[in-house]
Parts: sequence; C-alpha cells; structure tokens
Amino acid sequence: MSASGEAAGTPPVSDIGRLTGFSDGVFAIVITLLVIELRVPAHRPGELLTGLVEEAPAYVAFLLSFGYVGVIWLNHHMLLRLVRSTTLGLNWINLWLLLGVVVIPFPTAVLAAAFAHDGNDHDRRVAVLLYALAAAAMSAPWLAFFSYLRRHPALLGEGISVAHVAAQRARPVTGMALYLLSGALGWFVSPVLGVIGIVVMIAYHALTSEGVRRGRPRRR
Amino acid sequence: MSASGEAAGTPPVSDIGRLTGFSDGVFAIVITLLVIELRVPAHRPGELLTGLVEEAPAYVAFLLSFGYVGVIWLNHHMLLRLVRSTTLGLNWINLWLLLGVVVIPFPTAVLAAAFAHDGNDHDRRVAVLLYALAAAAMSAPWLAFFSYLRRHPALLGEGISVAHVAAQRARPVTGMALYLLSGALGWFVSPVLGVIGIVVMIAYHALTSEGVRRGRPRRR
Amino acid sequence: MSASGEAAGTPPVSDIGRLTGFSDGVFAIVITLLVIELRVPAHRPGELLTGLVEEAPAYVAFLLSFGYVGVIWLNHHMLLRLVRSTTLGLNWINLWLLLGVVVIPFPTAVLAAAFAHDGNDHDRRVAVLLYALAAAAMSAPWLAFFSYLRRHPALLGEGISVAHVAAQRARPVTGMALYLLSGALGWFVSPVLGVIGIVVMIAYHALTSEGVRRGRPRRR
Amino acid sequence: MSASGEAAGTPPVSDIGRLTGFSDGVFAIVITLLVIELRVPAHRPGELLTGLVEEAPAYVAFLLSFGYVGVIWLNHHMLLRLVRSTTLGLNWINLWLLLGVVVIPFPTAVLAAAFAHDGNDHDRRVAVLLYALAAAAMSAPWLAFFSYLRRHPALLGEGISVAHVAAQRARPVTGMALYLLSGALGWFVSPVLGVIGIVVMIAYHALTSEGVRRGRPRRR
Repeated sequence: MSASGEAAGTPPVSDIGRLTGFSDGVFAIVITLLVIELRVPAHRPGELLTGLVEEAPAYVAFLLSFGYVGVIWLNHHMLLRLVRSTTLGLNWINLWLLLGVVVIPFPTAVLAAAFAHDGNDHDRRVAVLLYALAAAAMSAPWLAFFSYLRRHPALLGEGISVAHVAAQRARPVTGMALYLLSGALGWFVSPVLGVIGIVVMIAYHALTSEGVRRGRPRRR
Repeated sequence: MSASGEAAGTPPVSDIGRLTGFSDGVFAIVITLLVIELRVPAHRPGELLTGLVEEAPAYVAFLLSFGYVGVIWLNHHMLLRLVRSTTLGLNWINLWLLLGVVVIPFPTAVLAAAFAHDGNDHDRRVAVLLYALAAAAMSAPWLAFFSYLRRHPALLGEGISVAHVAAQRARPVTGMALYLLSGALGWFVSPVLGVIGIVVMIAYHALTSEGVRRGRPRRR
Repeated sequence: MSASGEAAGTPPVSDIGRLTGFSDGVFAIVITLLVIELRVPAHRPGELLTGLVEEAPAYVAFLLSFGYVGVIWLNHHMLLRLVRSTTLGLNWINLWLLLGVVVIPFPTAVLAAAFAHDGNDHDRRVAVLLYALAAAAMSAPWLAFFSYLRRHPALLGEGISVAHVAAQRARPVTGMALYLLSGALGWFVSPVLGVIGIVVMIAYHALTSEGVRRGRPRRR
Repeated sequence: MSASGEAAGTPPVSDIGRLTGFSDGVFAIVITLLVIELRVPAHRPGELLTGLVEEAPAYVAFLLSFGYVGVIWLNHHMLLRLVRSTTLGLNWINLWLLLGVVVIPFPTAVLAAAFAHDGNDHDRRVAVLLYALAAAAMSAPWLAFFSYLRRHPALLGEGISVAHVAAQRARPVTGMALYLLSGALGWFVSPVLGVIGIVVMIAYHALTSEGVRRGRPRRR
C-alpha cells in the first residue's frame, strides 16, 4: 500500500505484546473456570465419601479439559514464537482461534453429561459428534494463521523460514481430517471409539507442539 | 505546573504498560465469560440433539457478543498505538471506556432473551432500544479519548500527527448518531430493523479499525 | 545479610513486573465480575421495561462498585510508580492490599441488598457499618506499604524522596479515621448519612490519587 | 538435536515471559474467584446481622484459601526467579503445577462444608484426608521442577547455582511427607489435628519462600 516503515523492512504493524497478553488472559481464564464445574456433592451426614466417589466422571472431564486447554496453550506459545510482529489480519485470525478455545468447555460439558448420567447411546453419539465438530472447526484458524504467515514473510521472527511455516500447515489439516473421522466413528460405529479418536488427536497435538518449537523444520 | 521532565518533552506521566495490561485483562475476561451462558440443555434421554437445536438463539447471541467484544478490542489495540504515555486524566477516560465494555454482556443477554423466548413485540422494542443506548453511550469515551489526545500532543506516539487524531473523532460521533438512529428505528418502526442497524454499526467499527491502524490519515 | 548485588545498590530482590501483572489481573477480574450481578429480570411478556426499571438499585450498586475498584486501581497504579523493586515483605503487604480489593464486592452486595429490598432500617445500619469497616480495614495495608517503603529507601524509584513517601501516610490514616466515622454515623445516626460519608471518602481517594502521582510533594 | 543457539549456551528455547504471564493470570483468577463463595445471607428483615454472623465459617475458609493461594504465588514468584529461559518440558511441569493451584478451591470448599454444617465426624475425616492428598499431590510438580532445573543448568538465571537448586528439593519432599502425615492424623486420630497439621504446612511454605528467594543457599 504505502508506508516507509514497511518498505524499509521494519515491523509493518505492531509488536505482538498485546496479542500475547490478551491471548494468555483468555487461556488462563478458560483453564481456571473449569474448576467451577467441581462442586461439593449434596450428601447426607456420613456419606460425603460416597458423594465424592459418585462425582468421578466430573473429575475425569475436568482433567481432560485442563489437559486439552493446556495443550492448545503450549501450541499457541510455540505459534507466536514464529512471529515478530502482527497485523490487523493476523489479529482477526487470532481472535478466531481464541473463539475455538473459549468455546471448548461447552462441548466438553455436553460430552461429560452424556457419558455420566443424562444420556443414552443416541445422546452419546450426538455428544461425540458435537465435540469432534468443535475440535475440527478449531483447526481451521490454525491453518489460516500458517497460511497468512506464509504469504507475509515480513512478519516472521528471525531465523524462521517460510518453508518451515508452510510445512506446519500439515498439522491443522491432519487435525481437521482426523477429528472429522473421529466424529464419524462416534456417530456411525461407537461413541467410545469416537472418544478414543479424540483423545489420540489431543495427544498428537501435545507431541507435535515440539515440532513447531524449534523454529525450523525437524529432521526425521 | 512544574516538572523538568514535562518541559523537556519526555513522557509526562507514565508509560502505558499497566494501562494496557489492565485493559487486556478486562477484555479477556469479558470475552471468556460469554461462554458461561452456554449450558448443557436439560433433556430426556435420547433428546440431547433436540435440546441442543432449541438453544440456537443462545449460540447466535454468543457469536455476536464474541464478535462485538473482539471488534472493540481490535479498536482499543489500535487506539493505544497512538499513545506513548498516559496521565491520570487519560486513565480515567480509559476506565470509562472499560465500563462500556464490561457492561455489554448485560444488554446482549436482554436482547437474546427478548428474541428467544421471554419477549413479545413490545419487549423486543425495549431490548433493541436498551442495546442501542448502551452502544451509543460506549462511543462517548472514545470521543473523549481522541479529544484529550488532541489537546495533549505530548502524549502521542512517534510519527502520530494531531491532525490524524482529530480526524478520528468522526468515528465515535458517527457511532453515537447511528446507534441512536438504530434504537429509534427499533423502537418506532421495527425491532428487527433496529438489530440490523446495530449489526451494521459493529461491522463499521470492524472495518474502520483499519483506519486508525496506520497512525496517519488514510488515502481514499 | 550478604549479597554483592545489594551492597552495590542494585535492586535487592526483584523487579516489580510480576507484582504488577498479578495485581492488574486481580483488579481486572474484580471489576469485570461485577457485571455478573446484573441479570435479565424475570418478567411476563410485555413487562420487560417494568422489570428493568425495578432493577435500578442493582445498576447503582454496579456503578458505585465499578467506580470504587477503578479508584483503587488508579491509586495502586500511582503507588507502584514509587517503587523500583520489591521484596518478600512488600509482596506480602501487596497481597494484604489485594485481599481488601477482592473482598469489596461482598460488602457492596450486602449494602445494595439492604437498601434495595431485603432490609429494614436496622439491616441498613448493619450494612453501612460492615461496608465502612471493610473500607477502613482496606486502608491498613496502604499505611503498611508506605511505612515499609520509608524504612527501605533502596526500593524507591528514581527521584522519589523518602519525605514524599512519608507524607503519603496521611492518606490511609485519614481513610481509616473517616471510614470509621462514616460507619459510626451510619450506625448511631442515619444509614444514609453513613453512605454519604463513604461516597465522600471514595471521591477523596479519587482526587488524591493525583497527589501521589508526581513522585514528589505537591505544592499547595 | 542440533542448534547453534543451544551449543553456544544461549537460551535454548524461549524466555519466560509468557510462562509468567499465563501463570499470573491463573493465580489472579483463582484468588479472586474465592469471593464468589461469599454471599449475602438470606434473612428476614431486621436479621441481617444474625445472618452475617452465621456465615462465619465461610469467612474463615475464604481467608484460609486466600492465604494459601497467596503463599503458592509467592513461592512461584521465587521459583521463576531461578530461571532464565524455559523449554517445552518445563512448560509441561508448570502446567502440572498450575493444575494443583486451579484445583485447590475444590478441597477447600469440601473442608469448609464438612466443618460448617453438612458433615458429621466421619465426613470431616474424609474432607481432611482429601485436602491433605490434594496438597501432597501439589508438591510433586515442584519436586519435578527443581529436578528438571538441576538436570538443565543452562536454564538457570545468572548467579543461581545447581547446588542451590538441588537443595530446594527438600521443600516439596518435606511437603509431601508432612501433608500425608497430616492426612493420616486427620483420618486415624482427629480431623482437627489434621487441619492443624495442614495450617502448619502452609505456614512452613510461607516462611521458606524466603529461602528460595535469594537465589543461593541461606546461611543458618
């Protein structure tokens, strides 16, 4: 468009300080709000232990959600290490990404309720499909983020190659495909299989956050 | 008053680090709290899907509010890029601005409830008017912010001209006028028309955040 | 004790970055949580407006609390500008100060409820006394903060004199005395007089945050 | 693996800015959410004072939890002062540590409820045991953190010796042993004795945060 600053190769829009601080605030709140779902069980005197044991599914859902948000935070941590400065466009993509993070407690709660007490087999298929669709949708802004960086190499941090960024696009594409596959498994075959697929995908993202970490293509 | 620092043209009061951090915290909490309104629908076994579909208005309200707070954050991001340092007066104006941000979930919830289930046509007119008044009121501190900066050019960041800041005052003035018009439309003509006016105004602020972004008047 | 760093006059413990970030997080959450008290009124179709008007006391309480927390944040902003680095002792005093901030929504809610609907005259005296005691108690850590700084001048920021810090102690002492007086007024004379005393004191702290701002005694 | 940066001894992964900001966000939210448990007591007109007095156990639980989270924050503050940069592994350990922080309101609420009104003696033993197990479990990531640092001295801040870090491992080990002992006391002997043991341990961590503070072994 114009702009001496950009022509000279200096950061074209702004540093990522506020982007980082705002994102970390959102992550911190989402991961902390999860504990609100853990409640002192209503119980008769002398039956606290029984009451606590009956809440076991809520603890499992809490740990799963905590782990999932933690994995996304680690991935986001690594994502922003690729970037030196940000633009309005990248800020929009980051807001889209945070939308996926903010939403996640909702399908998690639906999944926990369907497996814990409220649901029959049909409800569990619905819950697994909803969760898988939410997770697949959350992969889309990551693909947009990598693609935007690839088209705007001036935003990249020092020593980060365009080829490295382009290679990272495989991860959200894999995520979208396999989350959708997990949803289809859960809907058509078995809800438990769908959940297993989702847990495997979270583990995949946990393990591959290491891959983004180095700021250059990993050797394999 | 005094003060060698001010006379010499160095930042007269303090850098904007805490102003930024505090504001980002408020934005992050408001945008995250919105998900609390999404709840697992009470349902009979096998009817989870029906229950989820019936909650559709809550999802629309959630997305609208998320987008609205996101747009305000982007605008605030650009706003603070005009500023090098802050004063007690500017901190007060920023608190006023944050008051408008913190409030917004309330008229949003009223609007969603009026359209979803609780309201008749009269209630919808009330809800649209309330929303429009809240949005118009939120424009006032932005005008105060630009006007304060215009009168205190020593606070401006490097390369930001007073003329550019003065020109930005057109945006909150437009916002106030057209939000009030949307409210009048909703009250006197049709609630749906009023909502359309509000959505158009949010889109206007989304598009013009770009205008503030460059730190100088845009060419048209 | 030891420590080359301290002997050389460099910051004895740590910079105030985390102290600031943690405090701003607490302030941002407290000021944002206040909106949770604003709820869509339960109403019959066509009576939304009536329902909203009946909630007026809740809006007043919200605005008062927002203003109060905002004033405390501004004072805290100015307080930390006196400080270059922090110690374990100062961190403890800051935690004590934040305890007072975190608590404030509770006496505010009690006050609002007593005046809005739940209370008779006796309840209002109780509520005003509780609020005044909480506000007086909140002044204590500010006195401790200034006294600690006075005894540890190495922690002071550049150009901040011990005399200036010592002079600031008058403010929390005034606060404690007059908040207690407001509570006594509310208890023995009239709850409304007590509330007026409290509002005057909040305004006093709003106005005198300017006094701390300059990092040196103001001329009068 | 590779990496000139690491070979040269420069920070191998990333600075601790986001780790710090994210952690402080979590701490700020947990410590602020505690006030949500304080509610205006339902009461008949004229009986607000009685209602407030009956809530005394909730105030004690609030103060205890506030103090506990505050102590953990101070310890975490000192912990990160040992560190210059972070890795994926250390980020995981920090997430594990934050899991313990986020969880703590839950056993606190169980403990308060068991002592306040809902519980008999058996319930109190259960609640004390649960609290002690949660506190003991929270010590584990601290041990992992110190051990990780000991094995990766390149992450240590300037002037921090490996011997100092290794010595710090005594604190979480003491914590785990004595929290478990407190739980056993509460379960087999007396719930009140168990609570006293837990309070003593919180005080121990408050006092020894000073020990970590200096970045080198204390002289005794």
